[in-house]
Amino acid sequence: MDNPLGTTVTQVAIIVRDIEAKSRAWAQVLGLPVPAVIVTDPVELAQTEYRGQPSSARAKLAFFQLGQVSLELIEPIGGPSTWQEHLDAHGESLHHIAFQIQGMQDKLAYLDANGLPLVQRGEYKGGRYAYVDGTQALSVVLELLEND
Amino acid sequence: MDNPLGTTVTQVAIIVRDIEAKSRAWAQVLGLPVPAVIVTDPVELAQTEYRGQPSSARAKLAFFQLGQVSLELIEPIGGPSTWQEHLDAHGESLHHIAFQIQGMQDKLAYLDANGLPLVQRGEYKGGRYAYVDGTQALSVVLELLEND
Repeated sequence: MDNPLGTTVTQVAIIVRDIEAKSRAWAQVLGLPVPAVIVTDPVELAQTEYRGQPSSARAKLAFFQLGQVSLELIEPIGGPSTWQEHLDAHGESLHHIAFQIQGMQDKLAYLDANGLPLVQRGEYKGGRYAYVDGTQALSVVLELLEND
Repeated sequence: MDNPLGTTVTQVAIIVRDIEAKSRAWAQVLGLPVPAVIVTDPVELAQTEYRGQPSSARAKLAFFQLGQVSLELIEPIGGPSTWQEHLDAHGESLHHIAFQIQGMQDKLAYLDANGLPLVQRGEYKGGRYAYVDGTQALSVVLELLEND
């Protein structure tokens, strides 16, 4: 597969325990306005799956736009997820880097064949996401984002 | 200070144990050539300081260019450093995000006043770097890069 993920990182994400506090701290350091905090859709809308099972996982999200890359803060707020798993195992820290792609199923099949299994997926308004576990193969979790 | 770090992330970095193996794995997944591995300069050239003391710290580095952002792989190869510290504490994982700045001393003073103390600094051909410990304030290590 040529350029399976494209060659553009579009997001870097950090798991935090208190998104309001960390958003203020980041805004101060970056010299940017404090971003709005949004909450992910409930499972009925998001159709969230975690390790192959439906999950009630939700999170609060906040974004800073830094050129081509958005810096995403994620506070897990219940339900089993890669976010909560990461927080429990590693504390507040960088969680994933994301790529904007088209053709989710083909990309996931390619990554799975290269040792990066799907760990979580879901829908959002206008698109869908998937996390693949690259912690063994690449030393990091990857996220694929596909907008319609 | 207006836009203390600018608003452009230029680098995301991962600490690894075997940079040759991980470079090949990343190249396969990204569909890009395997990058050259370079070794940081010895302390006499790099003038490396770690936690206020001269350090013989060195590392192997490899870079993938992904649009505005370079993905950096770092394998520590001796000497006390933020790289080795991170590997010992967290294993292979995301280490820092970097910003291209001008005016290193002013930026470091601003960040220190905002709870982000200097942890490591050094010179490279054509510029210098500094890591600040944002693990408490921002849940991540930041790197400042200043090219002459």
